[in-house]
Formats: sequence, structure tokens, C-alpha cells
Amino acid sequence: MQQGDIQNRGHEPMAEERVVYLNGELVPNSQAKISIHDYGFLMGDAVFDTTRTFARQIFKLHEHLDRFYRSLKYMRLDPGLSKSEMAELTMQVLETNLPLLQEKSDYWVTQRVTRGERVYDGPGAGELKPTVLIECQPLPFAARAKYYRDGLPVVIPSVRRTPPESMSPRAKVHNYINLVQGELEVKAQNPDAWAILLDVNGNIAEGMGSNFFIVKEGAVVTPRDQYVLGGISRETVLELAAQLQFETKEADIDLFDAYTAEEAFVTSTSFCICPVVSINGSTVGEGHIPGPVTSRLLQAYSELVGLDIREQYLSHL
Amino acid sequence: MQQGDIQNRGHEPMAEERVVYLNGELVPNSQAKISIHDYGFLMGDAVFDTTRTFARQIFKLHEHLDRFYRSLKYMRLDPGLSKSEMAELTMQVLETNLPLLQEKSDYWVTQRVTRGERVYDGPGAGELKPTVLIECQPLPFAARAKYYRDGLPVVIPSVRRTPPESMSPRAKVHNYINLVQGELEVKAQNPDAWAILLDVNGNIAEGMGSNFFIVKEGAVVTPRDQYVLGGISRETVLELAAQLQFETKEADIDLFDAYTAEEAFVTSTSFCICPVVSINGSTVGEGHIPGPVTSRLLQAYSELVGLDIREQYLSHL
Amino acid sequence: MQQGDIQNRGHEPMAEERVVYLNGELVPNSQAKISIHDYGFLMGDAVFDTTRTFARQIFKLHEHLDRFYRSLKYMRLDPGLSKSEMAELTMQVLETNLPLLQEKSDYWVTQRVTRGERVYDGPGAGELKPTVLIECQPLPFAARAKYYRDGLPVVIPSVRRTPPESMSPRAKVHNYINLVQGELEVKAQNPDAWAILLDVNGNIAEGMGSNFFIVKEGAVVTPRDQYVLGGISRETVLELAAQLQFETKEADIDLFDAYTAEEAFVTSTSFCICPVVSINGSTVGEGHIPGPVTSRLLQAYSELVGLDIREQYLSHL
Amino acid sequence: MQQGDIQNRGHEPMAEERVVYLNGELVPNSQAKISIHDYGFLMGDAVFDTTRTFARQIFKLHEHLDRFYRSLKYMRLDPGLSKSEMAELTMQVLETNLPLLQEKSDYWVTQRVTRGERVYDGPGAGELKPTVLIECQPLPFAARAKYYRDGLPVVIPSVRRTPPESMSPRAKVHNYINLVQGELEVKAQNPDAWAILLDVNGNIAEGMGSNFFIVKEGAVVTPRDQYVLGGISRETVLELAAQLQFETKEADIDLFDAYTAEEAFVTSTSFCICPVVSINGSTVGEGHIPGPVTSRLLQAYSELVGLDIREQYLSHL
Amino acid sequence: MQQGDIQNRGHEPMAEERVVYLNGELVPNSQAKISIHDYGFLMGDAVFDTTRTFARQIFKLHEHLDRFYRSLKYMRLDPGLSKSEMAELTMQVLETNLPLLQEKSDYWVTQRVTRGERVYDGPGAGELKPTVLIECQPLPFAARAKYYRDGLPVVIPSVRRTPPESMSPRAKVHNYINLVQGELEVKAQNPDAWAILLDVNGNIAEGMGSNFFIVKEGAVVTPRDQYVLGGISRETVLELAAQLQFETKEADIDLFDAYTAEEAFVTSTSFCICPVVSINGSTVGEGHIPGPVTSRLLQAYSELVGLDIREQYLSHL
Amino acid sequence: MQQGDIQNRGHEPMAEERVVYLNGELVPNSQAKISIHDYGFLMGDAVFDTTRTFARQIFKLHEHLDRFYRSLKYMRLDPGLSKSEMAELTMQVLETNLPLLQEKSDYWVTQRVTRGERVYDGPGAGELKPTVLIECQPLPFAARAKYYRDGLPVVIPSVRRTPPESMSPRAKVHNYINLVQGELEVKAQNPDAWAILLDVNGNIAEGMGSNFFIVKEGAVVTPRDQYVLGGISRETVLELAAQLQFETKEADIDLFDAYTAEEAFVTSTSFCICPVVSINGSTVGEGHIPGPVTSRLLQAYSELVGLDIREQYLSHL
Repeated sequence: MQQGDIQNRGHEPMAEERVVYLNGELVPNSQAKISIHDYGFLMGDAVFDTTRTFARQIFKLHEHLDRFYRSLKYMRLDPGLSKSEMAELTMQVLETNLPLLQEKSDYWVTQRVTRGERVYDGPGAGELKPTVLIECQPLPFAARAKYYRDGLPVVIPSVRRTPPESMSPRAKVHNYINLVQGELEVKAQNPDAWAILLDVNGNIAEGMGSNFFIVKEGAVVTPRDQYVLGGISRETVLELAAQLQFETKEADIDLFDAYTAEEAFVTSTSFCICPVVSINGSTVGEGHIPGPVTSRLLQAYSELVGLDIREQYLSHL
Repeated sequence: MQQGDIQNRGHEPMAEERVVYLNGELVPNSQAKISIHDYGFLMGDAVFDTTRTFARQIFKLHEHLDRFYRSLKYMRLDPGLSKSEMAELTMQVLETNLPLLQEKSDYWVTQRVTRGERVYDGPGAGELKPTVLIECQPLPFAARAKYYRDGLPVVIPSVRRTPPESMSPRAKVHNYINLVQGELEVKAQNPDAWAILLDVNGNIAEGMGSNFFIVKEGAVVTPRDQYVLGGISRETVLELAAQLQFETKEADIDLFDAYTAEEAFVTSTSFCICPVVSINGSTVGEGHIPGPVTSRLLQAYSELVGLDIREQYLSHL
Repeated sequence: MQQGDIQNRGHEPMAEERVVYLNGELVPNSQAKISIHDYGFLMGDAVFDTTRTFARQIFKLHEHLDRFYRSLKYMRLDPGLSKSEMAELTMQVLETNLPLLQEKSDYWVTQRVTRGERVYDGPGAGELKPTVLIECQPLPFAARAKYYRDGLPVVIPSVRRTPPESMSPRAKVHNYINLVQGELEVKAQNPDAWAILLDVNGNIAEGMGSNFFIVKEGAVVTPRDQYVLGGISRETVLELAAQLQFETKEADIDLFDAYTAEEAFVTSTSFCICPVVSINGSTVGEGHIPGPVTSRLLQAYSELVGLDIREQYLSHL
Repeated sequence: MQQGDIQNRGHEPMAEERVVYLNGELVPNSQAKISIHDYGFLMGDAVFDTTRTFARQIFKLHEHLDRFYRSLKYMRLDPGLSKSEMAELTMQVLETNLPLLQEKSDYWVTQRVTRGERVYDGPGAGELKPTVLIECQPLPFAARAKYYRDGLPVVIPSVRRTPPESMSPRAKVHNYINLVQGELEVKAQNPDAWAILLDVNGNIAEGMGSNFFIVKEGAVVTPRDQYVLGGISRETVLELAAQLQFETKEADIDLFDAYTAEEAFVTSTSFCICPVVSINGSTVGEGHIPGPVTSRLLQAYSELVGLDIREQYLSHL
Repeated sequence: MQQGDIQNRGHEPMAEERVVYLNGELVPNSQAKISIHDYGFLMGDAVFDTTRTFARQIFKLHEHLDRFYRSLKYMRLDPGLSKSEMAELTMQVLETNLPLLQEKSDYWVTQRVTRGERVYDGPGAGELKPTVLIECQPLPFAARAKYYRDGLPVVIPSVRRTPPESMSPRAKVHNYINLVQGELEVKAQNPDAWAILLDVNGNIAEGMGSNFFIVKEGAVVTPRDQYVLGGISRETVLELAAQLQFETKEADIDLFDAYTAEEAFVTSTSFCICPVVSINGSTVGEGHIPGPVTSRLLQAYSELVGLDIREQYLSHL
Repeated sequence: MQQGDIQNRGHEPMAEERVVYLNGELVPNSQAKISIHDYGFLMGDAVFDTTRTFARQIFKLHEHLDRFYRSLKYMRLDPGLSKSEMAELTMQVLETNLPLLQEKSDYWVTQRVTRGERVYDGPGAGELKPTVLIECQPLPFAARAKYYRDGLPVVIPSVRRTPPESMSPRAKVHNYINLVQGELEVKAQNPDAWAILLDVNGNIAEGMGSNFFIVKEGAVVTPRDQYVLGGISRETVLELAAQLQFETKEADIDLFDAYTAEEAFVTSTSFCICPVVSINGSTVGEGHIPGPVTSRLLQAYSELVGLDIREQYLSHL
């Protein structure tokens, strides 16, 4: 059997349960498991990428897959599937799961590839066959809706983003402890806080799955892409900002820039654009949520994806 | 049910199969799996520790568990089991598996705790219950025996060990991509090479699961423990060296020290003490495998654990 | 007139007002002012040192003055007073102010020297005559008493302690903005939090006027003195710990050490020894306030200074 | 009383004395003093900005106030005065002082805001009311005139500019010891030398109140603005250079760039543009003072401000 | 005698021997020697530059001499020859040596200037007279031809390129031990490997006498010129790429960029453009030698210099 | 012919001329030359070591040769001579040259090994035969005598000592441009100044061929040996200090330590111990030359070597 074919080994997905593609099969979400000897578990030696749907339509799948295959190349992992096979399987998994999606909701759609199972002894020892899975997950609108109303309170922990000379932040891999430590720090002080880490040079890098932007003298500015995973949402915002005639810059942003910014926002696949109300407790600009530039970008993003992003979140309050 | 009790949910382990403790149950090794939504898989957000047996006797279990619980504290993970409960369960798992151990072989014995399963929606959303597992794994004597005969060819990759300000190397966690990248670099040049990484200051840190030592002007020297996971084997060697009246030092070791060392060796739970023949292709000392100091330490280690470590390896050639 | 003589230019201190030595005169506290052209104001180009009284007796005045004159040497400032003249003046200022001290209270006693007044034009242009002042200030027992009951919640900001290659933390000077920024960060999240900064290498350095200690495997450990102002209280604790047969170490302390420490405490001239309850929200050890080692050190410190330090604080609750 | 109103508490300024705005009052320069308990003195916890007059006309007051309010925001200081109130008060202070200005002279015009007076005990304890002052100061033409004739001999000390992760060089605050140490180093070797510091990366940053430029392959180049306080004069030069069709760049400048530059100059509020004759004793270009590009910029600057800048300086020789 | 004149002190060059200009004389290559007391030998305190011929025509001599004189300025060395005198002498040396050049071959043409001979005692003590030499050397086509056929296997050693704050990589000087150490590391693993070093920030810098390029999303990208010696070939490629309408960038390139690049190549005076087949064993792009962009640049370079560069190399296989 | 044999190819050393061992021959000093194609010249790819005589007796030759062979090992250079052969040849060269030594003078005795001559084409291409030389050089007593009378004025340049991750300062090699740049900086301000460089961490490292010491609270302190070439004189001083019951430490020394030291001195093969009068113009301690601890060490050193070191220098004034 090839990786590209989906087999159905007799699992009967529960009526109400999503399915997951796992090494050639569709299995019910609750039964989607991997061996405890899989390197993806043992070492986080796995690569993934995630897009989302807007009103059930998948967003920039090919841009995400391009990034996914760059992460795979960096990790010297061959999934045994071409990019177009991966795209096709992804669409099949999504379509199978769409009927289960609730109204006003949308999916994260995720591909993952691990280095496979560690076998020290017996047959197959030392051989590695990658584990491939594709899944859908409803977006957590309810939990995050308040941020669209109140703005994100960004707090910067003392932990610094892993430097590229150790592990590139640009590869989307299953090693998140650096970011987890950052979150543990800031959420212990304020459970609503959103952790954004500095890089080892003291410039703002990124948060978990999220990029950071400021508006400064009217320009839309975000950290350079060496110390961050350049999100597709980040790319989208840079494009929309350019279309709206804002100056855009990838530049070093330090605490002085952040504290004196006119506006700030966070981008991520789920958030798209979420306004930031304060940084380390210092109100951003005049504290408007969202600020005028953020508001125009959010509107343009909504137009691009065909639904009012902010309304979708606020409807879950 | 408490974490400390073992349930048997009716699995019938195969005659020839080891068992794994998994969240209160003993399950056959081949059926020991975790959810693809477990943070231990998604983020490598998991902690582990590993000791081994020597002639079927477990080695320094309590020292390993002390280190294990320090890693858990660092990660703010509560396994729901006291250290003594963890020790007792470990011994049960080991004893169950000992009959399956082949002659001249020994086990790695490993505990792992993850942050539990991510549930965004439905009942249990946001609640986290740690996943706990304990397993045994035969040591890979055959694959590594040649290193006891020929010495390890150490090669230093360009990738630098993740700095403590990003993630402490002293916590034994499931985030190994930094070390995996180091291995990919050096094994592409020489599949037998053993990667030892520099820290961000340019001093020698550690390899995957392995500490580095040199003998310099008769003293036994190893990197300071801030940039490395201070192994129990490393501790054991420092103690044995002191007993043998060698001077011992934890110090910065850079390439100059390494190239001009009289001897060098690597320690790890599996290796105990494995001599190094060359560093970046530069022969260590006169190239004797093992050198005189290494030889005396290996003998003392063998006496401590009650078997001839080198012979055990060489018997698998 | 020499710097060493005190003149009384006819000020009549208010019955209830302390006096300040200012360039040869005793002036009432409320009238002790310096020119807005003084470099001590314009540039923070000034040096100071502070000891305190215990039950009205001054503590280690000479050790403080030794440190004061090292700071002056570093800044190439000559106060025009010998160390013994400075000591004598200090005692005169203290004795004049002691009658105003309330029961159960004590004084900070502080010397300050600035580079003098900037004069660009007219007579005296370019000449610099240092400004010298000595003052007493009641200690803020009421405001800090709760920390002796509840422990200090230490939080580590993202701002890093100024590195010695820019300005030595070991000189006690009027440039505190680095530490002020650290406090602004953490107090915005929790007004009771005590900011302790990391140095540029990611090791714990110090807080405003305060040193940090952990107890680790029974040893009393504090950061090395290159990145911190080595307090006299810090020295005192190291001496007392040695007398009590605790191992003492000056060593790099990173977040892993801090999170896995058995106990932690802060020292300062005012605090002496104040227990730490948590670091970045992670409870220190079992959370006992104070822990057993801290408790013994506090008792020894109390015996040294002749009053129960903790009781003095708690009596102001 | 509001901060914005000026009260006259009966001081009679001496006929020949300038006045200072201090917390709502105009006081004679010699009586303008602040409490020794003011945080602006104790910690250098104060913000300022300075412009100057050209032929008695104030220069770019609003640009300076924009920068001033950015510094205040960074320091989380609220002066209690709007930007336009601050501008109006500034003009009043200047106008009051203009009659005292000597022929061929001009004023520095400076606003300062401190965090206010520290009160530990009694009424007002813990409350902070910012100290606000505005002053005029004649420019030191005589002392610096020789630099326009001979060029500035720039020397680079070993001390490195404080990094932004510790304290942003972009906030104009009363913490100058880092720069003072730099000056002490170089003036001990050559009292005429002008200290320009490297940043922690080894690139040229800035000197006390002064920015550095080189001309390289015809382009006008200055350090990027993260490690320096981007002066208004620096901005002005970049604008004038662009108008004159020179390429302009903000870039890393290291010692190689400096030693091989065709020309170099320093900008500051007082200097505007002052040619550099040598860097660490290595003659800049062919040693012409000023070089051709510098000369054209100086001429354009003179035209902009309506007086011959170089002539004004040279007239004081 | 002036440096600019060539004297013939009676050496009779062998029929088959090239000549070298050495301090005013033409001497046979085998007799061109310098004192063991010359600082160029004792300290590597010497500057050089090298161009080559293409079909016996010298290439960009003036650009090379401009760079040569910048290196001399950085080192504060005065060769006693103007740039045009140096050019003229160079052409004389080349012309004298051209008859000895074999078919299909070409020359490196090199100027060197040392700080002169150290004399501690006797006449001339402490005086320094620079040593000047100019030489021709046939290019090693045979040894390097295979790289044009198979591509260069680039390997990145652990040694980092000397930082500019220690010694500028932009000055072409006789201090190569940093690069030699890099080569020793990688050639011990693979004698054919080409060492390219990272800078101290973890970005790709350069190899011995060679610059590095990648093609990324169609753009031609090379490291910024602060950490590398900006080769004339590098400049030429950037110009040709721009003429061919490729986007060109000088940017930070880290391992992620390198591993995910579409193509990579190395430039040097001898190589011009040599394709890279792998980086740390990870195949570049699809592994085509040369890739499409590299191929077009190589063709354009060949047109510029008037011979088929790749063919010239391959003809020596 | 072996490297260990000395051939006499018929050179007739001038009556008054020293001889040099060069690749198996004794040649007159003025005729000791190496090819311009020798890697020792082209790249500074050469290793050396230097001891001196005291009253014509060689000092610690074997310690120097041990260090020499460590440098050779680091550089992967095999001189083709055993350590004892090298010692024997050294003594022969010294003895041959001793008759030429003037009264009250002494020799530097130096061995050098290069990687040999680069041959690209013709016979021997690619083969490398090391160049070996041994020489004697009278010490420059006259030039340095004033430093024993007045003390060394140490100045710290902005250039930082090359970090070990680029090239180990512990290997004594022919790459001195980093230190040459440091000297150029400080001697341009003060031709008598002695440059001592900081390492990349901002701690004091070393000067050209010279180590740095301070006396601090009575202890004799010198930088740790990772960033410096640990001189034999440095070792000797540490041993003598221990014999004299001074506490000795290898520790980080920054500018604060240096400015507040009680005494400071420099050690080198030629100087032995030379007192420092000032650091960056700040007088060391009270400015006594030599200070009391320095004086005792100098006396002990003199006793060890059998002549009054200071007197020998002062006799050349």
C-alpha cells in the first residue's frame, strides 16, 4: 500500500466523531493513536502545518503545504507523499469531517509527519518509516472571543526564543517546550495574558503559533523572519497592508518600539488579526480596540476570506 | 482509580512481548499508544528518565527518580504519583518484563509523564490529566559494540546546544530536535560518528543522552552542568575518579582542550564509559583504546555494577 | 572651609525634622536640595552607599564605606574627604537624627557624592566640585512587613541587568533605570511582586538593592559577584552560613536552578533576609515561609545584630 | 494649581539671571533646585529633551517634543501636561530668557520630567507627583570652536553602549554613567578626544548626545537607530543629504568601515555637523576638514537654520 | 631607489621560471624569499589581494587594487607606492610571466605588503620598511575541475568566523588560521568537502577565499558584507544577476535557508561561480549541477570574461 | 636527511652574526629566509614558542616545549622532530650563539614550525613538508627599561581578543593581527601605552605576549586560561605567589576589578613581572611602582632565575 491511498481497516467511526488520516487509513478521532516508540513522541521529531477553513472553505492550502515541505526538508524527512498527494488527502479528510462542523464554527486542518517508530531489536530494527496523519479540529472560538472584545494583554516572559543556531524557529516542529515555558511564566501572573517571547538579541520574536505586529509612524512593522515562524497569516497581513497603501517593514522591534507603538496586534491561523491592548501592562497607544490601522486590516482580511472574522469570534461570547 | 494502581483491562500480552505501564494499566508493548492529541506528542511536552539494569539488577533508581522529579518541577508537571509510588511501579514493570530478557542482555527502564491530552471542545475541555508510562527496552549492545573495540569517533556539528535561557538542557524532556539536527549533520559525513555539540559560548556541551569527558594533565574533566544534562553515569564517573585519587573538575572545555587532551570518553546510561578515538578527526592522545585512565575508570565502574561492561558489549560483536 | 567640617548656616531645623549633611552644612531634610545643574541630577553621575541601624546601632559602617570608596574610585570621583572623615560625619548626622526615630523603627544611613555642578559659562566654568551629602531615612517596615509573613513572590522581567562591559553593577551609582524598567514590568502584573533580573547570559543577577539566594542540595548559593552589587548583607549571610556549617557557593543560577531550589530568599540592607515564596509563580520547594535553612540564617542574623529581624517587621503589620 | 500654569511665588530674578520653570513657577536659575529625595536625583529616573535656538529662533520644537513624549511613554511617566501645554510653557521660558542672551550666542532649551519625590513615611507616602522643569542654557561655543577648525579626534573606548535589552538608548533619560565611563577612558589619554562607543555587537553606536556618520563610496551612512538615540540633527542631516541627492543609509558601521571611510562627522543639537579628523588616531580619508560631502551638508544645514553654523563657532575662537 | 622602480640585481631567471617583484627587484620565483624576521611571517602582519587572468587578460585589476588599499588603510600600512604605480608594476610582472603560461591555463596575480622586518638591535632598530611583492601563480584547474562536474559538497565546521570586533574579515590579510581550522575539521571527514563557516551569530559567512550564495524563491542571496570579505567575484555576480533581472539580496542566511534553498553556489577569484551539490550532506534543491539560475549566471560570467569558465575547468579533467 | 640533523651547507656566518637553524642547516641570521610560498608567510599558518635565558642559562625549556607541542597538536602540524630532538637542537643553536651575547644581555630562544611550502603545480604539488627553524634574539632591555622605573601605562583598546570558538588564544601561532590592531589603537594615543585587550565577554584577556595580574584584597588574580595564552611566566608567578602564601585565583577580571585593584602587573617571557602604573589613565592603587606584593613576587622571581630582573632592565637606562 502506498502512503497516498486511504484504507479503511474496518473502523466504524461513531456518528458524531471526526476521522483522522493515519498512515493510509481513516480512523476515528478518539482512536487515532501512535506508538509510544514513535520518534514524534519520544523526541518531538515531527513536522506539521495547519491551515483553517473560513465558512467551511479551506484557506491557502498550497502556501501551507509549501511551508510544510520546507520544514520537512530542514528535518530531512521524506513523507513518501508528493505535495499534490498531500493536498488531495487533506481535502478528503476535510470533506469527510465537514458534516460534523457546527454552525458558525470552522476547522483547523493539520498535517503531521514523524520520523517513525524506533525499533532497536528484532525485525525492522533501525529502519524508519514516517508516520503521516491529517486531522481536523474545531477552532476554539468561545475561549478566545473575549480577546476580540478586550484586546490581548501581551506579556513578555524572561525566557528567550530558541535561537536559529540551535533549532530554526522557521521549521514547524513538535518541539514547543521553549514556548510552553514562556506561557507558564506569564499565565502564572495573569491567566489571560498572551506570551510573546524576545529572541536572544532582545528583539521581539513570536508567541506560540502567533506573530506580532506594531503600527509605528503609520507603518505596519513585524519582526524579521529569521527568529520567527513566518506565518501565512503574517504574509497575508503584509500583502493586505501593502494593498491598503500602508508602508510595511520587517525589522527589529524591541521594547522601546513596543511601548511607543501606536497600535499592536497578533496574527495566527486561528486569530487572523487580534488587537493587543497592552504590552507588559503598558497600554498600547491610546488603548483603542481595535486601533484604526488594525481595524482596516481586519476588514480587508474579512473581505479576503469572505466572513467577518471579528463577528465570528464575538458571536461565541 | 488512582495513578498508583495497575489495572489490567483484559489485554493478553503475547507470550514474547514486554508490557508497558500506561496510565494505570499494563499493556503489551505493541499496543502501548498515546492519543495524537496528547501534548507529549503535539509539543514534546513530556518529561522522562531512564536507568538501566546490570545483570538484571536496576541501577541507581532513586538517583534517576530524583532527577526525574526535578525535571517535572521545572515543567510544572504533577504526575499524580509520589516518588516512592513511581519507584514501586517501576520495579513491578521491570519484574514483569525480566523473564523476556535474553542472556547477556539488559534493559533500559524508563518513566515518562506528559501534560496530557488536549481537548478544546466538549466535556473535559481545557482540563489536563497527565499521561504516565513506564517501559523496558533491551539495550542495543550489538549496534554499539564496535565503539568499545574501536573507540567513538566524535564529530562536532555546527549546530549549538539550546541555551538554558531558552530551555534548560538539565530537564530531560521530549524536545530533541536540536540534538537530532546535530546528528543529521555529522552522520551525513560519517554514519559511525558520534555528535557532541558545543554550547552557545563555544564550549563542549553534550551529545544525545551522553556526556563528554577528557583527561588533561591527569585530571578527569567534564563540562559544567549548566549547559548539559548531568547524567547519573557522569556523576558515577566523577565519584569513581575521586575514589581512584584522580583530580576531577567541572570546567569549560573548548576545542583546544579537546584536541590536546590525553584521553577522552563519553558516558551515558547505556554506554557507562565509552572511549573516544578522535575528535573532528584529530586522534585523541596517542590513540589508545581505551587509554590508561579511561581503562581504570571502566574497571571501577564494572566492579561497581558487578559485570564487565566492556566485555558485555564486545560479546555482541 | 573643608568638606570635613560641618557649618551651620543658621537653618533652624523644625522640631520634628531630620537633618541632612550637605556640602559642609547640616540642613533640614525638607530643605535639602541640589541644583538642577548638578551632574548627580543631570546624568545620575553620583555614587552612594547605605547601611542601616539595628536598635539604633549602626551596622558595618566600615564595610559600607570600603565599598563606597571602591564605587568612587571606579567613577574617578574624589569626595575631598578621607574614609575616616566620612565615617565621623556619618556618625554625627546619625546621632543628631536618632532622637527623632520612632520606637521599633530604625534608620537607613546614606552617603552620596556627585560629580558636582555643571557650569558652562561664567566664573567656575568647567570646574567641578563634588556635592557631598549624608542622610538618615526611617526604614519602611510597614510597607514590607507582609513579605516576612507571606514570602516574596519573585517575578523575573524580560529586561536584563546592564552588563559590566557597559556599566559595572558593582558600583553603587544613581543610574537605576534598568532596574526601574524591571520593576515596572512585574508590578504591572502583580503590585506585590519583587523583580529579580537575569543578566545578559540568562543567569539570575539581582533586584533593586537586593541579592538573591537559593538553597540547593543543602548548600547556600548566590550569583557570582560580577553581575551584581555584592551587598554587605549578602556577605554577612555567606559568613553566617559558613559558621552554621552550610556549604556556600557563588555560582551561576539559572531558571532551572531557581525552579528546583529547596528554598530561596532575598537579602538587602533593609530586609536582611526575606524568604521567597515563589519564582515566576512556581512555588519554591514545599512553600514553607521561611524554609528551614532560611530560618536558621535569619536567626543567626538576628543574633548578630541584636534584635529579632522578623519580629521587628511583623510588629508593623 | 495645574502644571500648565506658571505661578510667581515672589522670587525676584536677578537682573542678569535666567529663569527656570519648576513645577508651575518661574525661579531664578541659581535657585532652581530639587529635593535630594527626588527620584530624578536618586535614580536618574527622569526624562528630558533639548533643542536649541539659531539666531534666537527655536529649532524643530515639535519634533523634539514628540521624541520627549516617546521617552516619557517608555518610562511610564505622565508629566501632567499635554504636548501643546509643554510647547507653550517652553516658549514662555525661552522668551523670558532671550533678553539675557549675548550676541552671537544661542540657547539650549530643555524640558525635564522626573518621577517625583520619594516619600516613605508620613503624609503622601508612596504617592508620586512628577517634577517638571524647563530651562535655557547658553551653548558652549568657545569651548568647542576648535573642533570646527581642526576636526574632532574621535576615540573609541573599550566600554560598550548599554544594550536595548537593558535600557533603550532611544529614551533620553538621566542615566549617563555608561557614556561618562566612555569619556573618562578617552579623555584620560587625550582631553580633546571625543568618545564614540561601540554597541555590544561591536558596531559604532553613539557618543554623549551625539550621532556618528561616515561617507562611504559617496553615500551618507549612520548607525541604525536601535542602538542609538536618533537625534533630531541626525534626522535633519538624513533629510538634507537626500535633498542633495546623496544616497543615505542606516547600517551597521564597524571599525573597518570607520577606518576606510572617505569622510566622517558627528551630529548633535549643539554641533549640528562637526567634521571628524581621525578615528582612533587613524586619519579619516585625506584629512580634509571638512570634507567635500560634509561641507555641502553643513552649508545646507546653515541655510535651513538661517545662520552659518561653522562661522558662528569659529567666531568664538 | 624608489619602491616604484624595478631593479635587476643580476639574478638570471631560469628559462622555465616565473619572476616575482620583491622590494624593487624581479627575482626568480624559487629565490623569492623573505626574512624570518619579517612581520609578515612572524605575525601574519601583511595585506594582499589577488585577481586572475581570463585567456591571459587581467580581470578588474582596479577594483582589486581599490580593495587592496582599503585593507592597507585598515592595517595602517603604507606601501610607499601609489595605486597607479602598483597597477603598473603588476602589469609588468604579469607580462614578464605570460610567456610561461601553459595553454588553457591562467594566472592568479597577487600583490602583498608586509609591515617589514623586525629589528630590535643595531642600526635600523624599530624602523619599519614595508616589504612589497607581486607574483603570478597558475590556477589549479586540474585539482578543482571535478567540482564543476559534481558540484561542491559544502560542510559547515563548528569553528566560527572571526568576528569583526576582533579582526575584520573584510581586510585581506595573512591571518588564516581561523579558516584553516575550519578546513581541517571538514576535510578530516571528507577530503573533497568545502568548508564554509558560520559567523558568531550563527549565520553563514564565508569559506577560504570564497563567498557563498543561495537561490531562494528565485532571488540571488548572499551574506551581508560585514562578516565576509566581499569578493570581486561576489560583486560581479550581484551585478550580473541584476542585469539578468534576478532579485538580489545581501541578507542573513542561516542553516534553514541553506537547507531549503533552491540552488547554491560559491564564488571566488579562481572559481568565478562553482555550483554546490549539498550542504552538510543535505542535497541542495533537486541536486542539479548546475541549477538553472546558477547556469545562467555562469553563462553571463563567461560572456563577461570572454571564455567558457566551466569548459576551461572541465578541460582539465 | 632527517630534521634532527644539522647540516652545514657551506654558509660562513659572519664573525659578528648569530646563526639560525633552518630545516636541518645552520644559516647566518641575515640569510635566514623562507619562501614567499610558505604557508607560514601566506596564512600565518605556523606555530612557535619562546623562552629566554637568564645570565645565559635557558629557562624552563621543557615547559615551553610542552606548550609548543600542544600548539602543534591543535594545528595538526607534525614537525618531524620529537620533543627531545627539538630540545637538543635548541641547545645547540643557543650554544653556538652565546659567544655573541653582550654583557648584561640575554637571549630570547625561539622555535617555529610552519605547514610548509604551497606547491600547486609541478613535482611536489600538494605535498607539505613543515618548515622548522630555531633562533636566538637579544632581549630589548633598553627599549623597555623605563617601564620598570615608571610602570606600564595599560590602555584597553576597543578591539576584543579573538574568541576561542574562532581561534584559540592558547595556541601560540603566527596570527597576531587582532593584537596588532589593539596596539595600533592605543599607541596612536600614547606611544608608551601597553595594550591589554578584553575578551568578547568584556573581561580582561591579555596583551601581545603578555598576561595581566591584579592584586585584590591581598590575593594575586589573573584571567582564566581559556581566553589567554597561559604564559610560562604566568605559571611561574602563580607558583611563586602560592609559595609566598598569597592567595591565588584564576578569575574573570573586568574594568571594575581593574580600576579598584590594589596593584597590577604584566608578565611575559621578557618582562617576567612588570608593574602597571595606570589602567585607562586611572592610577592603580596608590600608584607605587612596584607595589608591595608585586615587589615580593619580583624578588622571588629574581631569586628563582638567579639574577635581579629589575636591575638588569634598569641597567640599560
